[in-house]
This record gives sequence, C-alpha cells and structure tokens, in this order.
Amino acid sequence: MNIINGNITSPKGFSASGIHAGIKKAKKDMAVILSEKLCSAAGCFTTNKVKAAPVIYDMKTVKNPVKAVVVNSGNANACTGDRGLKDAEDSAAFLGELSGVKAENILTASTGVIGVNLPMDTIKEGIKACFSALSDTYEGGEDAAEAIMTTDTVPKKACAEITIGGKTVTIGGIAKGCGMINPNMATMLCFITTDAVISSKTLQTALSAAVKDTFNMISVDGDMSTNDTVIALANGMSESDEIKEGTAEYDEFLNALFYIARDLAIKCAKDGEGATKLIEAHVYNAKTKDDARLMARSIVSSNLFKAAIFGSDANWGRALCAMGYSGADFEPLKVSLTFKSDNGSILVMDEGKPVIFDEDIAKTVLSAEKINVEVDTAEGSEEAFAWGCDLTYDYVKINGDYRS
Amino acid sequence: MNIINGNITSPKGFSASGIHAGIKKAKKDMAVILSEKLCSAAGCFTTNKVKAAPVIYDMKTVKNPVKAVVVNSGNANACTGDRGLKDAEDSAAFLGELSGVKAENILTASTGVIGVNLPMDTIKEGIKACFSALSDTYEGGEDAAEAIMTTDTVPKKACAEITIGGKTVTIGGIAKGCGMINPNMATMLCFITTDAVISSKTLQTALSAAVKDTFNMISVDGDMSTNDTVIALANGMSESDEIKEGTAEYDEFLNALFYIARDLAIKCAKDGEGATKLIEAHVYNAKTKDDARLMARSIVSSNLFKAAIFGSDANWGRALCAMGYSGADFEPLKVSLTFKSDNGSILVMDEGKPVIFDEDIAKTVLSAEKINVEVDTAEGSEEAFAWGCDLTYDYVKINGDYRS
Repeated sequence: MNIINGNITSPKGFSASGIHAGIKKAKKDMAVILSEKLCSAAGCFTTNKVKAAPVIYDMKTVKNPVKAVVVNSGNANACTGDRGLKDAEDSAAFLGELSGVKAENILTASTGVIGVNLPMDTIKEGIKACFSALSDTYEGGEDAAEAIMTTDTVPKKACAEITIGGKTVTIGGIAKGCGMINPNMATMLCFITTDAVISSKTLQTALSAAVKDTFNMISVDGDMSTNDTVIALANGMSESDEIKEGTAEYDEFLNALFYIARDLAIKCAKDGEGATKLIEAHVYNAKTKDDARLMARSIVSSNLFKAAIFGSDANWGRALCAMGYSGADFEPLKVSLTFKSDNGSILVMDEGKPVIFDEDIAKTVLSAEKINVEVDTAEGSEEAFAWGCDLTYDYVKINGDYRS
Repeated sequence: MNIINGNITSPKGFSASGIHAGIKKAKKDMAVILSEKLCSAAGCFTTNKVKAAPVIYDMKTVKNPVKAVVVNSGNANACTGDRGLKDAEDSAAFLGELSGVKAENILTASTGVIGVNLPMDTIKEGIKACFSALSDTYEGGEDAAEAIMTTDTVPKKACAEITIGGKTVTIGGIAKGCGMINPNMATMLCFITTDAVISSKTLQTALSAAVKDTFNMISVDGDMSTNDTVIALANGMSESDEIKEGTAEYDEFLNALFYIARDLAIKCAKDGEGATKLIEAHVYNAKTKDDARLMARSIVSSNLFKAAIFGSDANWGRALCAMGYSGADFEPLKVSLTFKSDNGSILVMDEGKPVIFDEDIAKTVLSAEKINVEVDTAEGSEEAFAWGCDLTYDYVKINGDYRS
C-alpha cells in the first residue's frame, strides 16, 4: 500500500465539487460527488433511534447502484418529520435529473442544525451550481472536503493506492467531525471512493469491518448523532480483477480501506470541538476484543478524564474509573497504566497499585499534543484502540450557542 | 408528612460531628455519625466495577447492626489496592474501640482524589477529634454535612416527620455531590438517619425503591464514581410500631424516605460542578417506566444539550437526539416537547414536527435558574423524572486541575 496525497477524486472516474449555496452565511455548504459509471455502494449509519431524513433515505437507497451523492452542511435535516424525508428525496431526484439517472441512484447526506426544514430553493440552486462545478482534479475533491465541514477547523482527507493483479487501485476519502461524536459514530460524515472492481456485498463487508475499529472507536462528547454516515462507492474503473472475499486481494483492499477509515477517524477525534489534544487509549492483554473495545472507548469518553488531560493532570484514577463503568470484564487489582507522549512516558499504576510518581515529569508528558494511555489489563491477549480529545472551555463555548 | 428544618441529628438518639483533620488544607474533612443504640442498616452502592475500598467494606458490613459511620473527604480511598481495604477496616476498628463496638458494627465512606492511600495517622487523629465533638444538636448534623463536601458549594440536608401509631417518627439526611455524578449514582454520598422501628430487610427494600427514582436519576457529567454510597440507619428509638411491608405505615414511611432522597438528589444535581442551572427532564406517556427513565436520564446526561442550556439556546433537537440513543422504545414522529421555567413556557416540537417559535421568548424561558423539559412521547401512560445541570466553563476549570 502506498499512501498518497489525494482525496475522493484520485480514483479513476470520480469528480467532485463544493460551493457556497447560501445555507450558511459565507462558507461553502454544498458538495456533490459523482462517478462516471454507476457504483457498487456500501454504507454504515447511526444507530440512533432518531435518524435524520437523509439517513433513512440512504439506508434503503445504498442497496442500489449509485451514481452520485449530494451533501449539505449547515442544516442536518433531522427531526424534520415527513417534510424532511420528502426534501431528501427531492434533492436526490433533482441531482438525478441533472446526471441522467433516477433518484434511486443518488445518495444524500446532511449535517448541521437539527429541527429546521431544508431551504429547498437554496438546495436546488446549490445542486445546480455543484453540478456545473464538478471537477475530477485534486481541487474538486478539496472543495467537497471543505463544503461538508461544520465546526471542523480543517478539511479531512486521505488516499492510498494498492496493486491488484498488476493494476493500480486507488481509494480516497473525505470526512467531517466534530461535535456529537461518540462510539458508533455521530455527526460524522465520511465519503470513500474507489475504482476497485468489487461487488456491493463485498464492499459492505469490508466497510463494516473497517468502521468497527475506526469510526466506531472515536468519541468527542458522548453524543451519538442523528446523521452519522459512512458511504463507500466503487466504480470498477481500475479494470482490475474483481476483489472477492477470502482472497489475498481482499486482505490488501481491506488493509487500505482500514487505513483510510482510521486516518480520517483520528483526524475527526483530533479536531473535536474545542480540542487541544488528541487522546489515544490502547487497552491490551484483555480477555476479549469486545472487553478491550469497551474499556478503550470508555476512557476517551469520560468527561472527567478529558478535562484532566486538558489540564495536563495525571488523574489516572479517572481512566480506571471509566473502565470500571464500561461494562467490560476485568480485575482492577491487575491493571497497569502508563501515560506516553512525545515528551516521554510515566507509569502511574502498577498491577493494581498506585505508583508514587514525579508530578513534574507527568505534567511534561501530558503537555504534548497527543497523549497515549496504555492500559495492560493482564487478563488475556486481545487489544483495542480508541481516540478522543480533551474537554475544554472552547467545547462549552462552541456548544453553548451553536445555532447563532 | 411534615417537612421540617432538620438534619441527621433530628431523629432521636443520633449525634454527629464534623471537623478539620488535615486531609484537606483548611476545610472540614472528617465526620462521624453515631447512634445511641445499634441500628438496622441498609445501603445502595456504586455499580462501577472499580469500587473504592470503603464501598467493598460497607457492602458486607451493612448487613450487620450498625452503631456509627466514619466519613472523610479529600481522599476517596479508591484504586488503592489491598492497603486501601485494610485502611478502611482499620478506620472502622478504631472508631469501634472508641464507641464500644466491633469494627463489624461501623461503616466507612470516603470521597475525594482517587489513587492515593489514606494518611492513616491523620485519619486516626481525626476520628478521635470527631468522637470528642459528637453532638445531638442541629449544629452537630450541620458540621457533618459540611465535612463531607468536596467541590460542593453548599451543604445539603433534608428532614421530615411522620406519625406512626401516634408516635412521631423522624427521618433526616445529608448528602454531597458534585462531579462524577451519573445515573446509578457517582461521587455521591448520602447518609439518612431515622428513629423508625424497622427491620434491616424492610429498610433495604424501601431505600432501594427510593434510590431508583431519585439518586439514580441524576447526572452531572456521565461519570459513574467508584465511591457512590447511600446509607440508611434506623435505631428504633421513636418506639413506634414496627413498620412492615404491605401496610399503610410502610407507604407513609416510604413516601417520607422518597421525599428526603429526592430533595437531596435534586440538591446534588443543582450544585453540580460549575453548574448555573438545574435541568429537570420529565418524560411522560411513555410505553414503560423503564423507557421513560432511559429517555429522561439521557436528556440530562447529554453534553451537547447541557451546553445549549448553559447558553439559553433552545436546541431541542439535542434533547430528541439524546432520547434516540438512550435505548428506549419510542417513535420520534409522535414526540411533543416543551421548555418550561418560571419565565414561561414554549412548545418547540409538536407531534414530531418542529414548531417555528419566537427565539426571544425561548431565550427568556431558558434564562431561568431551573429549566423543565417536558416530553410527551404519546406511547402509553408511564412517566419518569431526571435531574441534571448545565455544562459550563467552570466545569472544565474545576476538573482540569482538580488535584492541585
């Protein structure tokens, strides 16, 4: 696998655009991603009972061959009743007309404020403008990455190439965070494109596997959104051999897909609302994989621990406490816990016993931009990673008056 | 039931004290509660897998007749290994000697920093000082209420009287919050005393019932503590008839116990770390009681919703979103949601449809000190209440550097 500087327009046959339609005051707020040929599609969606209209719409539509995706930011089209569902369908139909396919071949996604109906006149004008602006250049993908942002401070993209039977297969992705992010995803949108030859079923299997240990292992604030969506589109234009499950090629493809998903997930966690630090929790020697996942996620989701990391305070008891209410099976008296960063490392709990450590060294370790929490549960041989960010004044500021 | 201005020394035969032993720099940090006669005892404890030493100790000891409780603040004696357990037992034994009973008749509780061993010399001097200071006056109870505080800004107490067979039975309680508070309790300590004649088994039944819809329905930050403890002691000194399950007297007693628990729980939520507002979520017409509880708790636990309330922002979509990931069974398209306060009320969602409302009126409603979130799920006839607080800059400040 080669990691390259690309995005969703890097795979053959994909174009994209991002423009300002007028949902937001001044920033880009609409994007379209379009494939020359119809794609095999796969999707992972929020498990929130309250699903935004585009999520409900996509969950059925993703089973069809897909030509394009229309995305808006600034309005989540969530909690908008029957009117919301009609708006999602009308948006798809409108882009379908322009691109010569039916509504059932178009996916939609929205992110932003909940409970306000989409301004459909603006949306339709925006779709027209996006369609005119479509470009298969690097810039086309960058514009789309920018247009899906809400409180994100930077656009997020990743790209990798693999070789399947002598042919280059490219996978690109873009994503946006940044609040309402919790295990099992949140106001998190991610679009992955590839020119691989792969069936919808196999693509779904690979995407679900990749999402489980990447997007489902990040937390910004414990709020699971109504709009979480990860979509993968494969248009087959690399003309490689078909990628089938249980082959070395599938493993190669999954590995690259996993890289893209992990890279974008970490970028979302790092750019969490108000965040100053990325937290990576690594729980190892756990009894089962699920136990490891539960504990790692619980650590990066704890408000108290996140606030301590903001203050560079080695309050490791809060991490252990979060493991305790995670539902995982482990024995607190066997746990060892180490904080690591580019500034060094410090053991704070050793086989269940608190270590008397140098507070100055701990402060130095925790003053870095990325903090690793290494937890040895001494139970078995399974491990998991989870990513989150610190809880800061700015998180409260951003979310105290998001709508204005 | 008469609500009276009293505390844990109001029931006959109870004395209490609170002093500065030296665990904290200057504030009171140790308390003792003692009964003239041995008590029937009952307790509810944290369900966190990581249980503090005093919790582990109390869970077995509460089955015995209990003479007294020793409590310290400033150090949670949690994540302190075998040494921690021995320290809890030694504290109990030391107070037992002074009060003429065995360690097995003494309960202990601790709250404060996790992962640091108790300073046992200071603790023993503190127990001596507390024992000398014991008083059955109102002030004795007030001192104890003050000595168990950590980041609490005010001491919390409640008291009520009922009449059983012509005899006055008094129930008093004290509690402390304020961070690490989540459904199923948190660094929440509560001590309830009564002179009722009641068996340990019946007292436990009543306490468990009261805790379920009071202390288990408050959330400050979603972190379930290692130390949560609610203890009830009944010394029988009212000389009333014995209170037995299935009688009108039991209902009367449970009603008063519920009042005490609810009053103290709400005081803990209101005094949440950094809080400026109390949030009361009332979910009604739910399919089942458990569905109602899940939804109400999820609303008051949502960081995003709590931050919105801090900013007086009527971002009701975040409340509906939190209901959606609560695990409760309901239909979003049937929900109606109203914000209420002393400043008025405003309907924001009507049977699944967003209402176009006056933002100025909403801001006025949400600018009060107590915000009610009234949610009609139009599914059945069950209801539940939950209490929480807003998420503020000060929460982050307090928890970014709690240990220093």
